[in-house]
Amino acid sequence: MRLTLDEPWMRRALALAERGPAVDPNPRVGCVLVAPGDGGEHGEGGTPGEGGAVGVVVGEGWHEGAGTRHAEAMALDAAGGRARGATAYVTLEPCSHTGRTGPCADRLIAAGVARVVHASADPGVASGGGADRLRGAGVDVEQGLLVDQADELVRDWRVATLLGRPRVTWKYAATLDGRLAATDGTSQWITGPAARADVGRERSRHGAVLTGTGTVLADDPHFTARDGEGTLLTPQPLRVVLGERPLPSHARVTDEAAASLRLTTRDINAALTELHAREVRSVWLECGPTLAAAFWRAGCVDDVVAYVAPALLGAGPSPIADLGITTITGAHRLALRAVHQVGDDVRLDLRVPPAHAPTALPQHLGQRRRGPTDPIKEAP
Amino acid sequence: MRLTLDEPWMRRALALAERGPAVDPNPRVGCVLVAPGDGGEHGEGGTPGEGGAVGVVVGEGWHEGAGTRHAEAMALDAAGGRARGATAYVTLEPCSHTGRTGPCADRLIAAGVARVVHASADPGVASGGGADRLRGAGVDVEQGLLVDQADELVRDWRVATLLGRPRVTWKYAATLDGRLAATDGTSQWITGPAARADVGRERSRHGAVLTGTGTVLADDPHFTARDGEGTLLTPQPLRVVLGERPLPSHARVTDEAAASLRLTTRDINAALTELHAREVRSVWLECGPTLAAAFWRAGCVDDVVAYVAPALLGAGPSPIADLGITTITGAHRLALRAVHQVGDDVRLDLRVPPAHAPTALPQHLGQRRRGPTDPIKEAP
Repeated sequence: MRLTLDEPWMRRALALAERGPAVDPNPRVGCVLVAPGDGGEHGEGGTPGEGGAVGVVVGEGWHEGAGTRHAEAMALDAAGGRARGATAYVTLEPCSHTGRTGPCADRLIAAGVARVVHASADPGVASGGGADRLRGAGVDVEQGLLVDQADELVRDWRVATLLGRPRVTWKYAATLDGRLAATDGTSQWITGPAARADVGRERSRHGAVLTGTGTVLADDPHFTARDGEGTLLTPQPLRVVLGERPLPSHARVTDEAAASLRLTTRDINAALTELHAREVRSVWLECGPTLAAAFWRAGCVDDVVAYVAPALLGAGPSPIADLGITTITGAHRLALRAVHQVGDDVRLDLRVPPAHAPTALPQHLGQRRRGPTDPIKEAP
Repeated sequence: MRLTLDEPWMRRALALAERGPAVDPNPRVGCVLVAPGDGGEHGEGGTPGEGGAVGVVVGEGWHEGAGTRHAEAMALDAAGGRARGATAYVTLEPCSHTGRTGPCADRLIAAGVARVVHASADPGVASGGGADRLRGAGVDVEQGLLVDQADELVRDWRVATLLGRPRVTWKYAATLDGRLAATDGTSQWITGPAARADVGRERSRHGAVLTGTGTVLADDPHFTARDGEGTLLTPQPLRVVLGERPLPSHARVTDEAAASLRLTTRDINAALTELHAREVRSVWLECGPTLAAAFWRAGCVDDVVAYVAPALLGAGPSPIADLGITTITGAHRLALRAVHQVGDDVRLDLRVPPAHAPTALPQHLGQRRRGPTDPIKEAP
């Protein structure tokens, strides 16, 4: 009963969270502070809010990115004294540590908030534990409402927090018969303009676009994020080239249109650790079959976006090189999350289950309650 | 204005046509006879029918398959004397020849029908010409209303009439990376039970399932049409094995569950001509990459149904062998008609444009008006 009344407020908090930047070292968080009723013109029974919710909003907030106030702080600033006795709906467990800002759990306690309903749990060793801290101060805490939506919103940050590396989405575009290019190496364009514009928007939603020296030498891609008209989008991803082969000085991927980074290594874990240190939380991987297989074998693919063009080539390279699989029961199975037509092409969104991505985030962790004696170890 | 009033009746005729069998040598046709108003209890202004249509239905008919009455005949039988002065809505141009039944054009004239509205044109040399015959007798004839839907309904028959061979749908199931099987040849199962049940239903909608000796030797498939529970559907397709290699006597494709046919030839045109002579109007092609490429090179693929499994193999055979294409601009482009999720898999429906299927039905033919001096040559 109470959860049903709570749900509209959590939906509002999720909508607020989406005002934050998609590309940021910090998670997107939203917060709504609701008083049980204003006791004034609307009477003691409280005021029905959106979707049948009961209560009065006394403050709203969202996180606008690293270095700015947390969502709870923005909401508390707006509420002032009216936060006393209120319920805080927060999409993520309030933090308990002093980072670039002070711990939100302490601010909620100090403001006299009576109850905190949060969706996602905070898996961070330093930042987590806010719920326990709140409970210790006598605040009523509930977790898990709309947790799937909330986890999805902070997926980059969760993967990065748990694994110490950015979330990696492997993108490829192939023909119906699974050809990345023709036998002469040409691949421009397998997919149509709508799919290419879609890729441009996805690049802008990721902290980095990563490719290998082979792709740069073969195609000389620009790897900027552009819309369908060719206009540069904001933000631009960091363009990262992995591998030891020398590149020509005029390679387009190193031009002035966006930042670029050369990582002269073939060690995928080292490369991702370096990107994590640079606060990159999501990588859009556009590469040839060899590098794709290397990421796959390293367990460093979390999501796959496949563009399938309604075309046949009959010959040419496949999207991914040998994975050491010899029989059908050894096939790597992915979870199909969505399929859409994009112009004349088809886009498939897939997620790699934990079994095939040994270091990836287990699905159950989103719902998992963590106590102080049960720390989640951060990956190196 | 008149076409707007006509449309609901043609929709009704299309719905009636669908009562006919999907697998038959003859086309599915529907017919509605509408009198301008019954002059009786509903008044002289006519009776509004479904979707705002004006008039009174005096007869309905559909074709139940070769050897039975045509749709027009069934509708005229129902109408009796009330057909005089009526409009006949027919999904296909009324025939002008005496085949297993007499010419429908003559029956419509004899019944005193004042106007005929038909959707598709009849491309047959013998059966076509009905519209001209009706006009010659003073009947008002209009063609083209809802022609796309009507052409789709009789696509098997149109292709067969124009080309002298069955319509061919190439089906394949592959992984995301375009693998038909693993390197050890195993392929059961790439797709899940929902996709396999979908294939069973499609087999039942086609006159024949065709494969090559290679697939029989490798997989020993049954190629019956079954639902998701494994129950045999009705009708069963003719199971056709093409190729010169000897087959084991116990091959499941030759068992008693359905009819089967061995064609010991590698000549695709000869095989399709043989099936056409056996009144097969549609072929569901399930085969390995070599035979698929041979059909493609022969210009004998009209439609493609691709099942894409959310899996990766990294190695294994592709759906289609070499097509002689070396550069991206030479890719064969297909028209994507639909994309659906089927269980955990994705089904893509595609059509081969005339440019890549030199002997296939040109798309404009459906709308084309044909006079007596403009015969369409039937393919050998």
